Amino acid sequence: MTEWVDKEKVFKDPVHDYIYVFDKLIWDLINTRAFQRLRRVRQLGTAYLTYHGAEHTRFTHSLGVYETMRKILSHFERKFSWPGPGDDRTRLLALCAALLHDIGHGPFSHTIESVFKFHHEEFSQRILLEEPEVNKILRRVDDQFPQDVADVIAKKSKHPLVVNLISSQLDVDRMDYLLRDAVNTGVTYGRFELERLIRVMRPEGDDILVKTSGQQTVEQYILARYFMYSQVYLHPVTLSSDVLLRHAFLRAKTIHERGGNLFLPAELQPFLDKPVEQITVEEYLRLDESVMMFTFHRWTEADDAILRDLADRFINRRLFGSILTRELKEVEKQTVRDMFRAQGLNPDYYIAFGHATGAGYHMYRQGITLVDDDGDKMDIADASAVVRSLKPLTQYRIFCPKEVLRGEGSYKPIRGWLEALKI
Amino acid sequence: MTEWVDKEKVFKDPVHDYIYVFDKLIWDLINTRAFQRLRRVRQLGTAYLTYHGAEHTRFTHSLGVYETMRKILSHFERKFSWPGPGDDRTRLLALCAALLHDIGHGPFSHTIESVFKFHHEEFSQRILLEEPEVNKILRRVDDQFPQDVADVIAKKSKHPLVVNLISSQLDVDRMDYLLRDAVNTGVTYGRFELERLIRVMRPEGDDILVKTSGQQTVEQYILARYFMYSQVYLHPVTLSSDVLLRHAFLRAKTIHERGGNLFLPAELQPFLDKPVEQITVEEYLRLDESVMMFTFHRWTEADDAILRDLADRFINRRLFGSILTRELKEVEKQTVRDMFRAQGLNPDYYIAFGHATGAGYHMYRQGITLVDDDGDKMDIADASAVVRSLKPLTQYRIFCPKEVLRGEGSYKPIRGWLEALKI
Amino acid sequence: MTEWVDKEKVFKDPVHDYIYVFDKLIWDLINTRAFQRLRRVRQLGTAYLTYHGAEHTRFTHSLGVYETMRKILSHFERKFSWPGPGDDRTRLLALCAALLHDIGHGPFSHTIESVFKFHHEEFSQRILLEEPEVNKILRRVDDQFPQDVADVIAKKSKHPLVVNLISSQLDVDRMDYLLRDAVNTGVTYGRFELERLIRVMRPEGDDILVKTSGQQTVEQYILARYFMYSQVYLHPVTLSSDVLLRHAFLRAKTIHERGGNLFLPAELQPFLDKPVEQITVEEYLRLDESVMMFTFHRWTEADDAILRDLADRFINRRLFGSILTRELKEVEKQTVRDMFRAQGLNPDYYIAFGHATGAGYHMYRQGITLVDDDGDKMDIADASAVVRSLKPLTQYRIFCPKEVLRGEGSYKPIRGWLEALKI
Amino acid sequence: MTEWVDKEKVFKDPVHDYIYVFDKLIWDLINTRAFQRLRRVRQLGTAYLTYHGAEHTRFTHSLGVYETMRKILSHFERKFSWPGPGDDRTRLLALCAALLHDIGHGPFSHTIESVFKFHHEEFSQRILLEEPEVNKILRRVDDQFPQDVADVIAKKSKHPLVVNLISSQLDVDRMDYLLRDAVNTGVTYGRFELERLIRVMRPEGDDILVKTSGQQTVEQYILARYFMYSQVYLHPVTLSSDVLLRHAFLRAKTIHERGGNLFLPAELQPFLDKPVEQITVEEYLRLDESVMMFTFHRWTEADDAILRDLADRFINRRLFGSILTRELKEVEKQTVRDMFRAQGLNPDYYIAFGHATGAGYHMYRQGITLVDDDGDKMDIADASAVVRSLKPLTQYRIFCPKEVLRGEGSYKPIRGWLEALKI
Repeated sequence: MTEWVDKEKVFKDPVHDYIYVFDKLIWDLINTRAFQRLRRVRQLGTAYLTYHGAEHTRFTHSLGVYETMRKILSHFERKFSWPGPGDDRTRLLALCAALLHDIGHGPFSHTIESVFKFHHEEFSQRILLEEPEVNKILRRVDDQFPQDVADVIAKKSKHPLVVNLISSQLDVDRMDYLLRDAVNTGVTYGRFELERLIRVMRPEGDDILVKTSGQQTVEQYILARYFMYSQVYLHPVTLSSDVLLRHAFLRAKTIHERGGNLFLPAELQPFLDKPVEQITVEEYLRLDESVMMFTFHRWTEADDAILRDLADRFINRRLFGSILTRELKEVEKQTVRDMFRAQGLNPDYYIAFGHATGAGYHMYRQGITLVDDDGDKMDIADASAVVRSLKPLTQYRIFCPKEVLRGEGSYKPIRGWLEALKI
Repeated sequence: MTEWVDKEKVFKDPVHDYIYVFDKLIWDLINTRAFQRLRRVRQLGTAYLTYHGAEHTRFTHSLGVYETMRKILSHFERKFSWPGPGDDRTRLLALCAALLHDIGHGPFSHTIESVFKFHHEEFSQRILLEEPEVNKILRRVDDQFPQDVADVIAKKSKHPLVVNLISSQLDVDRMDYLLRDAVNTGVTYGRFELERLIRVMRPEGDDILVKTSGQQTVEQYILARYFMYSQVYLHPVTLSSDVLLRHAFLRAKTIHERGGNLFLPAELQPFLDKPVEQITVEEYLRLDESVMMFTFHRWTEADDAILRDLADRFINRRLFGSILTRELKEVEKQTVRDMFRAQGLNPDYYIAFGHATGAGYHMYRQGITLVDDDGDKMDIADASAVVRSLKPLTQYRIFCPKEVLRGEGSYKPIRGWLEALKI
Repeated sequence: MTEWVDKEKVFKDPVHDYIYVFDKLIWDLINTRAFQRLRRVRQLGTAYLTYHGAEHTRFTHSLGVYETMRKILSHFERKFSWPGPGDDRTRLLALCAALLHDIGHGPFSHTIESVFKFHHEEFSQRILLEEPEVNKILRRVDDQFPQDVADVIAKKSKHPLVVNLISSQLDVDRMDYLLRDAVNTGVTYGRFELERLIRVMRPEGDDILVKTSGQQTVEQYILARYFMYSQVYLHPVTLSSDVLLRHAFLRAKTIHERGGNLFLPAELQPFLDKPVEQITVEEYLRLDESVMMFTFHRWTEADDAILRDLADRFINRRLFGSILTRELKEVEKQTVRDMFRAQGLNPDYYIAFGHATGAGYHMYRQGITLVDDDGDKMDIADASAVVRSLKPLTQYRIFCPKEVLRGEGSYKPIRGWLEALKI
Repeated sequence: MTEWVDKEKVFKDPVHDYIYVFDKLIWDLINTRAFQRLRRVRQLGTAYLTYHGAEHTRFTHSLGVYETMRKILSHFERKFSWPGPGDDRTRLLALCAALLHDIGHGPFSHTIESVFKFHHEEFSQRILLEEPEVNKILRRVDDQFPQDVADVIAKKSKHPLVVNLISSQLDVDRMDYLLRDAVNTGVTYGRFELERLIRVMRPEGDDILVKTSGQQTVEQYILARYFMYSQVYLHPVTLSSDVLLRHAFLRAKTIHERGGNLFLPAELQPFLDKPVEQITVEEYLRLDESVMMFTFHRWTEADDAILRDLADRFINRRLFGSILTRELKEVEKQTVRDMFRAQGLNPDYYIAFGHATGAGYHMYRQGITLVDDDGDKMDIADASAVVRSLKPLTQYRIFCPKEVLRGEGSYKPIRGWLEALKI
């Protein structure tokens, strides 16, 4: 089954030094239009507005996930003869799923998906099955192969061990993104001992186990995620950028629904004009960050004052600020919204109630299992007080323009009246 | 004159760890629209198609250049009392020029400028003088200040030492980009001992001198540039990407001039429709990579087959290949073009004769001067055989589609007939 | 009071890049015999037998501690005017205490001190007060200064804030050793964001406070210590090397007390022949690792078979192995010792019951205090579940020759009879 | 032939991250007394007196050389089937020679060897053939194997390709020490792209060739050596430390020959009392740095004033200084010596005329050969002007006490009378 590339191919990489490609199948997948599109989708969405180094893309990350999988398979083969010399299909399945797991990601996906109500995972699968170029390459293995890769990504595969390698508490996706996001933002928080982590992993039946001696290596890895969530992924400045993005899209949607005048490129129209199931894969793949940014530029000159303002704030980084609150009841939120309206601000667009929950360790949603020399098993959370301590806390925030926060001009200082409301 | 920011501001940075901002002037300049636009212009243009990590922007680099200048000034102040306690204006001049030296850079600037015949440096100056937001901030120092910063960037300042710090063989621009491009591409070639380099520098009159004991530190820095040129900046794959970009724009220009049907966003029209002097700064600043990429997307569906093909090749990374040749005479190039035409390819768009000249050290265009303890001076090129050896070599290449290079389908293998032509 | 060195001095350093010396006082202290002796005392004792890179010395670390203090003082001066422009003496006090805090460390100090019953801290103080060269330099500040530095190191100073900087949960000693030991062993566990940690620290009265926004930076730093303890400092192989060292010394002491024949260099004799209080500083400073290693070499040819064997095991790295046990009662230990004796092994030298307690966070022994913008304070352990989770666990081990562990030759496999004993 | 270790063994390493051991042969060699002795011999001799981080040992480096060889063999096997599946002996030969190439190195070897007139290479070979433990392990391959490994190290092997991998312009020794010395000293000068360098190497007949596309990678590697020589290996402070060491030994030798009173440990006596050929391997292996340092300590209390002073200077780092001169004729040196004698200084011990020649590239002593796709070959020096420029320059220096250099006390300032002598 294996076709090798003529000469082994390498990509120079800031995280893994070199990324190696030996299989022609992988090489050809990398060169598809659908995969090259990932060059135009940043890995961390709006986080570059907080950490200027966070300019790396999902293309880069996807290569890194593939390389991490390749390293693990090389280790599994040498030490545990897994998946075994006669089973090249499983090896390719794992590599393809690693490479393609993000193929359906769109620009600023979390925001876009919340506005337009869909999940990129569905498109990931559809791309594998419906996008002609990708599908044809995958079918070189066999006709069932595209569906099998899609099933792995959808976590409903007949190969649960491969699924676990792709998405679990100990997966190649996370291993690469923690290291890559750390390197690009310049923080040390996401660093962990990748090589040693791989060395303590072992396949057993459907599961990945970790040798007891690797407990601290796993702890370091889990803590890397904990720190990266607070310091990078849920940074209030990034969250406030997302608010602007979401509100601008909501405003545009409203204008469009009302039949108002609005710049709307052909690439975005399907998302506004038809149910998501009717969007074709071809239409979907036309979306990337250049479309989004171009549209936002145009919206800085929109007829509608609110859209114009929101787009301008985003493009020119005049972001909303935020303050911490306790969890609010709906009636309290309504009071706050009324206070905004009373000051002449449309609360649908100029205030957001956000909550962000940090990264913990969830034992029962596919935990990480330690195994000792006698074969006895234990969840890392039972073995490690540090891991148990990582109970994710939720932070509640109100996002709104900084001038409102500070009470500049005619605005009343927000902290004052929030306190008066006992919020 | 100095206004400090309330709290010192920092940016976390992959190269310098932290970038410090103490001056309110600098802080306010960073937050202008014109400066934020640099977030949408990649530092290395198309090099991300060769090194996938090269996704960093001119925004990031500009902050790094500022920080490098800040470090040098801190060293000069401590050791040489330069520019001296009473002279805060010179300090600010150097910092502002460092921060803003790339403010006029557009997307894929080398290509765009060659097609539309202008230099971004002119726009850098015009932005300082004409862009209201930037200009107003700079004028807080005094009315002459914007012009003075512009003069430094234009290398015609009354402050030659500041000019040398900004653009010479030993300037803050180069110091930052070598390190930053090395970090982002993942290569070690561009690394050098920045801290030690700064420690051996000293201001003297209009010049920056380097202590003799720092000779090898300077050699390492010059070699870093030498390596980065060959390995990154002039990588044939990057050059071939530039060819596609240039040819697509030339094709679009031709179609537009002929009155053909063509998607042309308002942001690009001024560049096609009027002389560059008549383009306003406001118009100029609307250009960024999202406009360019969006336009290219649309061109993948152009009526014109050539434009459609070129845009598609660029967007989906089906790049031209290249082969080395000797330097060709015009008549020889014409023969080659005829061979292309005979095979049904329009040579204006499907072939390019490129030449790239590596980075050497030019002694007479503002060299680097060593000074010993007795005050005797010598150019680094006189002191160092390594530096003298760096005579830039020019490589000549023919760029064309890979299928033509390889002689696939009906094409005749190019190497064969080039040899027959004794090229 | 301040005398500057003519030219600022730098040391190139693998951790801090450069270490800067501006004060002539510091420069002269570095060049004393007592300080240079630290070049002959490894920082991590026998850990190089586990991690071969751990070959760095206390000299190197002491410079690093000084540099960390220098950075903190520079930050405190710039942001908080502490200790204030008129108070150069406090600045020098902090720098000298940082540089000299380990001046009394001897070779393999933990082992040596346990055998000969003394604490190096006492000698640290005596060196400052009695060693003529060091004392004379310190007295250049004033006659009280050597005592004041000694008091800081002894934690009984009138400058509690300086004491806290030198020895607390958040001190310069720990900051340097975590980073330095991580770099030299090659592990990532000890890395943390030093620069950011310094940036969130502030002096207030007698205390060092940390801004609430720095909570995670502190967590990362506390976790770095937690990991380094388990992975490096308390690694069973290192502990087993210490056992050999201690047993060899105990054996030599016994032979000496019995008047047996024994190589004993003049440098070691005072430690065997008189109470520690009578050892002069001059005698003490003659001890370094070359004396110890030389002596061990000679002991590999000792008349006494046990000493010969122990020394040989240490020098040629034929270390004891170990197994985990539960905590044992004295009577149980006695049973184990009897089992050893029954197999022809002297239990005083061929078995050790060790216990090692990992690094936790002790709230009440000078904790780390967070302070928010309103001035409200909270111990990090109250704020952080992760920190609270770091309850140090104690591991109990039996150390003995590997051939005994494995039951080679005539030995009975130890695990078997331990289980029979229900241990 | 291959015996594998039960579980693959790893060493954590600051340069290579992990060092892998799969062969039982290698594992057993590492655990010999002769190899463990290398832990007590610093890699860079006295360089730690210049760069305090240079405390790493030949043990550490030897493991690194082995690992570099292992990586190259892994690449050669995968890409070129070299040495071929049936030829495990050649693989082991290369690995053993890499691991053991420095086995004969003694403490401060360059100095010791110049005083006692021998070469450690001879002892390297004798150890392999005569040291029972090492020899027995090697003979597990076959009886001829120890001699074959010795021949590789002596460069007179029937396996010239293996010899080239161990000692040539492109050998594993150099690859590891450049990187390791850079990491430990903290400089960037010695860094190069190891992984890429290996990737462009190929075995062909007796030679290692490098693909033309790797020219710059080779240049970077050659330059790394060039910089490390000037910045680290030939640093004047290190050279001056060597002078002290050599002079102290010469003085001790003279005292001993005259029958004077002198501390002389049994470990050193053979070197003074009999011709080097009569020194046994067992005697030789007793020498390490602890013996040397211990002896120096004792010499700081010698009866002889000169020896006492030289030993004290070395131990307490009161090093000689140096000044640059032109090359001196013997008669001129004699004049200088007379000037010293006239000032009451014994010129045999208080002055040294040193010359140090930097690292160049020697084309004809086994150069580095580039090969292009057509198989055409060219020496790197013919291809690269940078490499050609690296003509090693010789620096001449006079070393003597700093107080003499500066003309302190009754000494006449040396620079003055040297100029008067036109030196």
